Amino acid sequence: MKIIESAKNDWIKQIKKLEKKKFRDLENRYLIEGEHLVEEALNYGGDIQFVLVTEESLPSYAYILEKIEEDKKVQVTYEVIKHLSTLPSPQPIMAIVGKENKIATTRVTSHVLLLDNVQDPGNVGTMIRTADAAGFSKVVLGKGTADVYSPKVVRSMQGSQFHIKLEETELIETIAGLREEAYQIYGTELNEEAISFKDIEKSEKIAILMGNEGQGVSADLLKETDQNIFIPMKGHAESLNVAVAAGIVMFSL
Amino acid sequence: MKIIESAKNDWIKQIKKLEKKKFRDLENRYLIEGEHLVEEALNYGGDIQFVLVTEESLPSYAYILEKIEEDKKVQVTYEVIKHLSTLPSPQPIMAIVGKENKIATTRVTSHVLLLDNVQDPGNVGTMIRTADAAGFSKVVLGKGTADVYSPKVVRSMQGSQFHIKLEETELIETIAGLREEAYQIYGTELNEEAISFKDIEKSEKIAILMGNEGQGVSADLLKETDQNIFIPMKGHAESLNVAVAAGIVMFSL
Repeated sequence: MKIIESAKNDWIKQIKKLEKKKFRDLENRYLIEGEHLVEEALNYGGDIQFVLVTEESLPSYAYILEKIEEDKKVQVTYEVIKHLSTLPSPQPIMAIVGKENKIATTRVTSHVLLLDNVQDPGNVGTMIRTADAAGFSKVVLGKGTADVYSPKVVRSMQGSQFHIKLEETELIETIAGLREEAYQIYGTELNEEAISFKDIEKSEKIAILMGNEGQGVSADLLKETDQNIFIPMKGHAESLNVAVAAGIVMFSL
Repeated sequence: MKIIESAKNDWIKQIKKLEKKKFRDLENRYLIEGEHLVEEALNYGGDIQFVLVTEESLPSYAYILEKIEEDKKVQVTYEVIKHLSTLPSPQPIMAIVGKENKIATTRVTSHVLLLDNVQDPGNVGTMIRTADAAGFSKVVLGKGTADVYSPKVVRSMQGSQFHIKLEETELIETIAGLREEAYQIYGTELNEEAISFKDIEKSEKIAILMGNEGQGVSADLLKETDQNIFIPMKGHAESLNVAVAAGIVMFSL
């Protein structure tokens, strides 16, 4: 096993750069932190390139490490872990994984979640996790949406990137493609013709389009939807958090 | 109108301390930021003690300021606003409001949300906002739950503290009180006897108990519930974000 003891090591400096989108895109890989995520990557066919672990925790993670090829294991100091982590008290295990991973499992539904310009990384991660739990087949991240491999999105996804297909692309094209496949596209905006989410006609091919936290779905995409839906509210709050709204709609299908 | 130009002013130093729970509890007041929250406080009977606003923005906020008594208005520099704010680019208006405020409006339902040891301020604020939107009558925050008047909770509540009753207390006593009023208490934990949230018997008196992000509801409180509920999941995610789960359950009632 390789041993790296200093955060100033050249390779560690390279890894540290993965905090930035530019470098993640360039190298096509990103960092995951903690036992749970490394396990998820292992169990669901994630492309694990390296596992970094401290000497003290080798015994506790032996059950993970025995499934990792020798030249992919790197023993580091906790100082190195802390240097690479974006958390105040990181777990002593992390991994570098490729963005591409095969989603082997068959999904329960064909439903698709589309995210237009959702900026908060916590919201993006939470919505992917919820789409996974609801059995959706895919999440498509459009323009302006937080980068799916940023540390905060990765943290709130809790490993769902290994279960559900994720795409980053132009939503206008995705919607055109879905329409050809006979999908019903539901936008989320309260307007005169909007219907309650409870009245969505159940079907195998449903796409839900969620928008920006402040401005909602952009006008040019709303034009492309088949129907707009809203969540009837009984209280005085003017709106719901976008991730909560998405959860309510996805679990109603 | 009073004018304060320096962040080193003694009174501003006192206000700055409201970032800490200790001082908020001592002075029984807290800070709200931005036009939307100040408006909400004004429209829903919040106890506005002071409004701080920059000279440049006096005209834009004239419609708010004309409803505020003269000795409650303080003109400050943007430097002072930035010093008091926890945001990188704060809006040039904020207010100091008392914790006590009369919730004048009648709520649509008698439902109650109970939060046990929910630690993330964003989750706590989002759940209060969602309970408000769902027409719940009250949110009770138990031991270990993030302080409702902390900057992050205040930000994610988006003014719901002016619409819905909030209590901080021992949940064990709250549950006993609710039971005397013939409430059905639903815990959220997956166990042998748990039922799907869809099978909750509709009634006017329902209390939903949500727990900690990692550990769930504490064992001593789960014992006190009438029934445990869970959200059936079709995908591979092991759990939902607690605020999303709460939203799905609250909007199903």
